[in-house]
Amino acid sequence: MCRWLGYLGNPIEPRELLYDPERSLIEQSRTHAPGMPVPNGDGFGLGWYGRRAEPALFHSDQPAWGDRNLRTLSSEITTPLLLAHVRAATGTPVQETNCHPFSSGRWMFVHNGYVADHARLRRDLVLAVRPDLFSSIEGSTDSEVLFHLAITFGLFEEPIAALERMAGFVESVAAAAGVPDPLQMTLGLTDGERLYAVRYASGPEANSLHVSADVASLRLLYPTEERFAHLSPEARVVVSEPLVALPGLWHEVPAGTALVVEKGGVEQLPFRPRRPG
Amino acid sequence: MCRWLGYLGNPIEPRELLYDPERSLIEQSRTHAPGMPVPNGDGFGLGWYGRRAEPALFHSDQPAWGDRNLRTLSSEITTPLLLAHVRAATGTPVQETNCHPFSSGRWMFVHNGYVADHARLRRDLVLAVRPDLFSSIEGSTDSEVLFHLAITFGLFEEPIAALERMAGFVESVAAAAGVPDPLQMTLGLTDGERLYAVRYASGPEANSLHVSADVASLRLLYPTEERFAHLSPEARVVVSEPLVALPGLWHEVPAGTALVVEKGGVEQLPFRPRRPG
Amino acid sequence: MCRWLGYLGNPIEPRELLYDPERSLIEQSRTHAPGMPVPNGDGFGLGWYGRRAEPALFHSDQPAWGDRNLRTLSSEITTPLLLAHVRAATGTPVQETNCHPFSSGRWMFVHNGYVADHARLRRDLVLAVRPDLFSSIEGSTDSEVLFHLAITFGLFEEPIAALERMAGFVESVAAAAGVPDPLQMTLGLTDGERLYAVRYASGPEANSLHVSADVASLRLLYPTEERFAHLSPEARVVVSEPLVALPGLWHEVPAGTALVVEKGGVEQLPFRPRRPG
Amino acid sequence: MCRWLGYLGNPIEPRELLYDPERSLIEQSRTHAPGMPVPNGDGFGLGWYGRRAEPALFHSDQPAWGDRNLRTLSSEITTPLLLAHVRAATGTPVQETNCHPFSSGRWMFVHNGYVADHARLRRDLVLAVRPDLFSSIEGSTDSEVLFHLAITFGLFEEPIAALERMAGFVESVAAAAGVPDPLQMTLGLTDGERLYAVRYASGPEANSLHVSADVASLRLLYPTEERFAHLSPEARVVVSEPLVALPGLWHEVPAGTALVVEKGGVEQLPFRPRRPG
Repeated sequence: MCRWLGYLGNPIEPRELLYDPERSLIEQSRTHAPGMPVPNGDGFGLGWYGRRAEPALFHSDQPAWGDRNLRTLSSEITTPLLLAHVRAATGTPVQETNCHPFSSGRWMFVHNGYVADHARLRRDLVLAVRPDLFSSIEGSTDSEVLFHLAITFGLFEEPIAALERMAGFVESVAAAAGVPDPLQMTLGLTDGERLYAVRYASGPEANSLHVSADVASLRLLYPTEERFAHLSPEARVVVSEPLVALPGLWHEVPAGTALVVEKGGVEQLPFRPRRPG
Repeated sequence: MCRWLGYLGNPIEPRELLYDPERSLIEQSRTHAPGMPVPNGDGFGLGWYGRRAEPALFHSDQPAWGDRNLRTLSSEITTPLLLAHVRAATGTPVQETNCHPFSSGRWMFVHNGYVADHARLRRDLVLAVRPDLFSSIEGSTDSEVLFHLAITFGLFEEPIAALERMAGFVESVAAAAGVPDPLQMTLGLTDGERLYAVRYASGPEANSLHVSADVASLRLLYPTEERFAHLSPEARVVVSEPLVALPGLWHEVPAGTALVVEKGGVEQLPFRPRRPG
Repeated sequence: MCRWLGYLGNPIEPRELLYDPERSLIEQSRTHAPGMPVPNGDGFGLGWYGRRAEPALFHSDQPAWGDRNLRTLSSEITTPLLLAHVRAATGTPVQETNCHPFSSGRWMFVHNGYVADHARLRRDLVLAVRPDLFSSIEGSTDSEVLFHLAITFGLFEEPIAALERMAGFVESVAAAAGVPDPLQMTLGLTDGERLYAVRYASGPEANSLHVSADVASLRLLYPTEERFAHLSPEARVVVSEPLVALPGLWHEVPAGTALVVEKGGVEQLPFRPRRPG
Repeated sequence: MCRWLGYLGNPIEPRELLYDPERSLIEQSRTHAPGMPVPNGDGFGLGWYGRRAEPALFHSDQPAWGDRNLRTLSSEITTPLLLAHVRAATGTPVQETNCHPFSSGRWMFVHNGYVADHARLRRDLVLAVRPDLFSSIEGSTDSEVLFHLAITFGLFEEPIAALERMAGFVESVAAAAGVPDPLQMTLGLTDGERLYAVRYASGPEANSLHVSADVASLRLLYPTEERFAHLSPEARVVVSEPLVALPGLWHEVPAGTALVVEKGGVEQLPFRPRRPG
């Protein structure tokens, strides 16, 4: 089980989310917790929007907790929009090309979960990827294939609908192969303007997903909490697991839900896989 | 341009070929030489037959010259049959899954060369790989695809013919896509009993390949040379570049040739791509 | 807190101890357990006696659980005597030169524990190392300094006494600097013939250490257990944490104790730091 | 032989120096050149001043030429002052703690060259380092010791004089040990405001060092050269080897010279080792 977070708001140093909270993402990657049988020590990635329209990516196949470069970088850049991911490999090699976020043009993508029986389904899934995208699949994870399927199904034009088509397609391929409950996923995506998140599983149990309350509410709840002081009103954090234990800070996103986070607020939509044809 | 070597003979420590010669493979990986514009510093691999029927593989994404583990290993094992490879990446990532040798069952495979315009041809090549082998392609090199195509075309039953079909198939796919002179390759392969080698290019210039003279001849030429003393009569080394400068030690393998090295001697065959149907 | 194991007996594949048991060392490095707050993901090492009188060392700065080279090596060598170690860094960098075992001539050494306030005491400790050994300290751990101090104090001639002098010296330097309870250590050492182990702490709580029962007893206890079938009568395993949960298999070594494991059996001695002069 | 560059001027993206020139530092690290027997593939480092008074450091033990993170970073930050270094190891391990720049407070430091017979002299050199700095020596290079000696001899107060004392001290220690011509060095240092550089060798041959001409002269020489267009008048580059072949662009710094580069211009001073007392 991997862990990830996304942020949209006024520019911050990634350090504020990756290192500073009590249960920061880096801390989570290492420290044991109920329901996390193994550490997220099989590489990590940070993607952010900086000086260009395309996201900048920093990947490593080492555990995040000991990486000095990540610590430096997290204090030396500022960004209004980022995705970060710590990986626990489930069968595929530990290498940078298997580290999230994956990117294409202005978009980037992180995933926590799996495609069941991926090795068996992989060929059928990859064949459905748009041929001109084929060679941009650099690694061997199921996650990267999901991203390329979503692009194939229209991610750049209709993000949520494309993700629903991707999920429906994976489920139909799995059904044909006799693989039950094939999809387990929380997703984080962004085009540099909006932050999208999805919580969905084919079966009854979906990995967790949380979104932070709006900053105005947080200031009412915690008027003396300094860390909220410099956040802009629209700032939001989406996380696989809460970073701090303040009551009222995190709202659990229900399973079968998509979020669209933008400066105007958070929209919550149902997420329903669309089977092809 | 990568470099590689293969050995078949009485058991030796890999050190004797990887480190000890004046122009050893490890030395070659680092030191500048005419016709080698860049170092072979993008990972390496050693494959050998030891305690099992399947080859044992040691891969690293670091330069071979600074790797202490390789140095240790090369003195701590002995083997009658090995393939070693130092890589200069040509576009694909530096990662262990892109390091040679690649293996499947009892077979392993190294390649020096390229498939021209690989990114464009890759999808068509990969689709022709036997579906049950699809998920065993772990990396993103052209070399690994060539190996899986050769298996698809019957490598385990008819090694040289399967390699000829593979070459013919790649050339036909390239021709259809308008890619001229697509194949540049020296290949080393083994099933644990025989050592196969191929020198071939679609165009006029083929990367070099050399095979050592038989040990009896070497002893006549160099009666006082100690390093030949413990070699068995059938021992042979196949190399992309000579390891030492002794006249008479290396025979250049002509372009368009396949070698079959076994205990009884070396057979030299023409290598002619076979276009499918 | 690091974890380690040592083995002396008939030749085995390291795999039998590193991977096969239910709570194998590699499994322990990753999976959460009571009393292990963080994983042992900051590098590992395997040292064994093979074709030479000096130990062969394999080190990596990656987590052991994802390392394919270690898995291969652990099946491709056999050895009658090995030390293996998985590291959780406590302040010093994650790099191969900080990975155990450390070696000098025929000896090698692993450590679980710490020197309290090491950064402050380091200079005084290092200055006491024999000048001709100074440049062989390659890394920055407290463990490597303890090993070099032990050599300085006569490890090669009187192993246990030298370790007692080392411990006494560290405690006297710490006392002068006002550092209480400076030493926490379980140690594993070997010269290629005997396996030495120490459990000691300056304060009241010492890290755990266990030694396996003799093979004859194990066979009486578990007559159908196949994994004991090929072990020679003198085979012993010394571990920081038990590898399997069989009652009667592991004897806890008391704090303040040194073990000498050899073919004739296990000798248990008191371990008492000797303050200099 | 390592290679390095320093830049002081208006803020630029490091990419402009690390990647864009014909003979960029990254290109130099890989491509063979006369007088460079081996590649600079044993790690690299980039240090720059960004959002804090202390330099930010990015180190890797991989070859620079294949590092995607360095490529990203070099376009995502801007800085008015940087040092970059590509390493060819000469005996000490390939690890991040052996990569330049080294830093202390606001200062950072790079070195090309060596201390002859370093392993033998190391203890005497390290013992002369200020005791409170002892534990901040993290790696095992001679370069890091030179830096800490310079700090010990007053680098923060009198930079050039402290470097002269450092050089004199090393030469006196070497003389006592019978080591001839002990120092070979070009140095780059900065406190975040000025850029210092030294070219010196104890013997007759000193490694090369070049400084760029002032921007006004460059624009006169090359009025249509776009790459000079956005440089501020005071911008200067100091390099171990020229990055481009434009006549008049590079001035060779004589052996036995120190440079002080600041916004007002470049001052050139004699560099003469000062033997202690």
